[in-house]
Amino acid sequence: MTIGILGAGQLGRMLSMSAIPLGLQVRCIDPTPRPPAASVAEIITGNYEDPASLEMFARGLDVVTYEFENIPLSAVRILEKTAPVYPPPQALEIGQDRLKEKLFFQNLSIPVPKYRAVESEDNYYTVVDELGYPLVVKTRRYGYDGKGQFILRNESEARKAWNALRTEQLILEEFVSFDRELSLIGARSRSGKTVFYPLIANTHKNGILRLSRAPYRDKELQTRAEGYMKKIFDELHYVGVLTIEFFHYRGAILANEIAPRVHNSGHWTIEGAATSQFENHIRAVLDYPLGSTAPRGFAAMINLIGTVPDTARIISYPDVHLHLYEKSPRKNRKLGHVTIICDTLAALDENITLLRPVIESGNE
Amino acid sequence: MTIGILGAGQLGRMLSMSAIPLGLQVRCIDPTPRPPAASVAEIITGNYEDPASLEMFARGLDVVTYEFENIPLSAVRILEKTAPVYPPPQALEIGQDRLKEKLFFQNLSIPVPKYRAVESEDNYYTVVDELGYPLVVKTRRYGYDGKGQFILRNESEARKAWNALRTEQLILEEFVSFDRELSLIGARSRSGKTVFYPLIANTHKNGILRLSRAPYRDKELQTRAEGYMKKIFDELHYVGVLTIEFFHYRGAILANEIAPRVHNSGHWTIEGAATSQFENHIRAVLDYPLGSTAPRGFAAMINLIGTVPDTARIISYPDVHLHLYEKSPRKNRKLGHVTIICDTLAALDENITLLRPVIESGNE
Repeated sequence: MTIGILGAGQLGRMLSMSAIPLGLQVRCIDPTPRPPAASVAEIITGNYEDPASLEMFARGLDVVTYEFENIPLSAVRILEKTAPVYPPPQALEIGQDRLKEKLFFQNLSIPVPKYRAVESEDNYYTVVDELGYPLVVKTRRYGYDGKGQFILRNESEARKAWNALRTEQLILEEFVSFDRELSLIGARSRSGKTVFYPLIANTHKNGILRLSRAPYRDKELQTRAEGYMKKIFDELHYVGVLTIEFFHYRGAILANEIAPRVHNSGHWTIEGAATSQFENHIRAVLDYPLGSTAPRGFAAMINLIGTVPDTARIISYPDVHLHLYEKSPRKNRKLGHVTIICDTLAALDENITLLRPVIESGNE
Repeated sequence: MTIGILGAGQLGRMLSMSAIPLGLQVRCIDPTPRPPAASVAEIITGNYEDPASLEMFARGLDVVTYEFENIPLSAVRILEKTAPVYPPPQALEIGQDRLKEKLFFQNLSIPVPKYRAVESEDNYYTVVDELGYPLVVKTRRYGYDGKGQFILRNESEARKAWNALRTEQLILEEFVSFDRELSLIGARSRSGKTVFYPLIANTHKNGILRLSRAPYRDKELQTRAEGYMKKIFDELHYVGVLTIEFFHYRGAILANEIAPRVHNSGHWTIEGAATSQFENHIRAVLDYPLGSTAPRGFAAMINLIGTVPDTARIISYPDVHLHLYEKSPRKNRKLGHVTIICDTLAALDENITLLRPVIESGNE
């Protein structure tokens, strides 16, 4: 069987690497030459909107999936004619637009931070006044890793942000000074079976994920978060891995965004869970039985951003697993990650304390 | 950096898959079209003795290694001119010839079963008489998975075996009715650091490995086996993963054979040890620090031989990891394996009891 993946970045690479031991073939389409998945998948180099490339890509595929949400729906509509596409395109549509996403959460009674859509320049300043500083302004579309968003603490910052983003459709949100950011990753298979990983605690810097730790044990929150995800699964007849990012704030969890795909905060599952998020995504879209999400010990994942520290030095630490993506270094670019797996929380803390400076001294 | 591997079978495939996350490139040479490693490595399709193929293969390699021991030494000699070849060719030479292997063990005072080299037909029957039934006759070279050997229980079997193998160089060995077969896998890096996995208990049928279980806990035996391996490491200035198969018999462990490579009985280390045998082999030949060999829970590995059972059925068992090799089914051919990882020995036993019939009903 052959799986097609839209996108051949690091997520496509890790999806491929979990599909291969199951005896599957993987083909990716990506406009970039020599993308990260090239070592482990057949690559069609082409634009997602180019019919000839799409046709080459689609030939003989049993199922199509994607590694990121900013792919044109038009491409998905074409591909659906030859093979099923999972997760469902509606999830893509929602994941692509922060306003639709917020409305979607609200329709399902999933709590979100206060927000308003921005309709004009006048309306922008009115909403700023109405919600009050501090605020976050975000483009509705194509934002990731903190791109297309600014924190507004005063009028001058509000004006600067307007000037930078005025050509885009925007939303304004209250700035939630959350206790922590949590994410929940789950999967639903074609026959409707579901599994959920334990909650993950995430630390960002400059809008980019730096550190994820799992399991974050809070039984009540876990149940609540799973309840929210189940609503989304049901509403969308979802298939595949889904991620919800939450702000944990004053006992509540507020949904920040969804990603209809495997997620950076779930990379620890490769070594840290009985079945990785990547394998469970593959299982879900092929309607195989889903695998156990039970954590194995305590895990942390640290992103390698901008520069890659010396391999020999990194892997000299015990309990450390290195994952490089074969990407050329560039400021703020995710080039790899390390996972640390320990039997005790104390050992994990110690390892993080040792390793973060080594890794982040190189990060930009 | 690029690693070259002689052979692109399942061992080359799994070596590649452990090299890729370290950001390495892998190129294999193999005479077979579309070998198992083709999904995860660049493949040079060519004969090991063809100078043009070897030249294409060798271009730009940083290090050369191999996935099996029956490769012509002449090829290694040519490749050594462009890049270091590990494990050292002397290990290959020994691993290729059961007589040299036995002499090598004896020189290092590593106990072996009683044996004699066969020099002629007359000598064959003399040795049979001298050692007494039951016996095993083996070709000195190119034997694997029980090929090129026969058990001799009486004169008629001795005669039949002679007729079948008379054109080959042979050795005769006492048939050891061992309590169990154990293997030890260890690694030595270019700078001389060593690590050892826990002993593994192996079950064969028709000369082919069916089941491996680890860790086999016996502190005294572990120490003894590691002592033997250390002698071999030192003697050969060994680099890479090495495997010794032992017969455990009346309290002693008798060395049966060595494999200068990653080994089927170590496949459980992918999920069942902190660092897999494949990654440690890669680390060793690149002189990276070796990774922890600590087991994670209790592991079993069952080979998929001859036929592959239904994927969905296999992975519906919890704690099971499936590894297929993309090989076409053929009698007695290793097509994949499953690993079972459990927190308790009781759960592992239960899983093996459940899963073995499912797997072996298909095996030939």
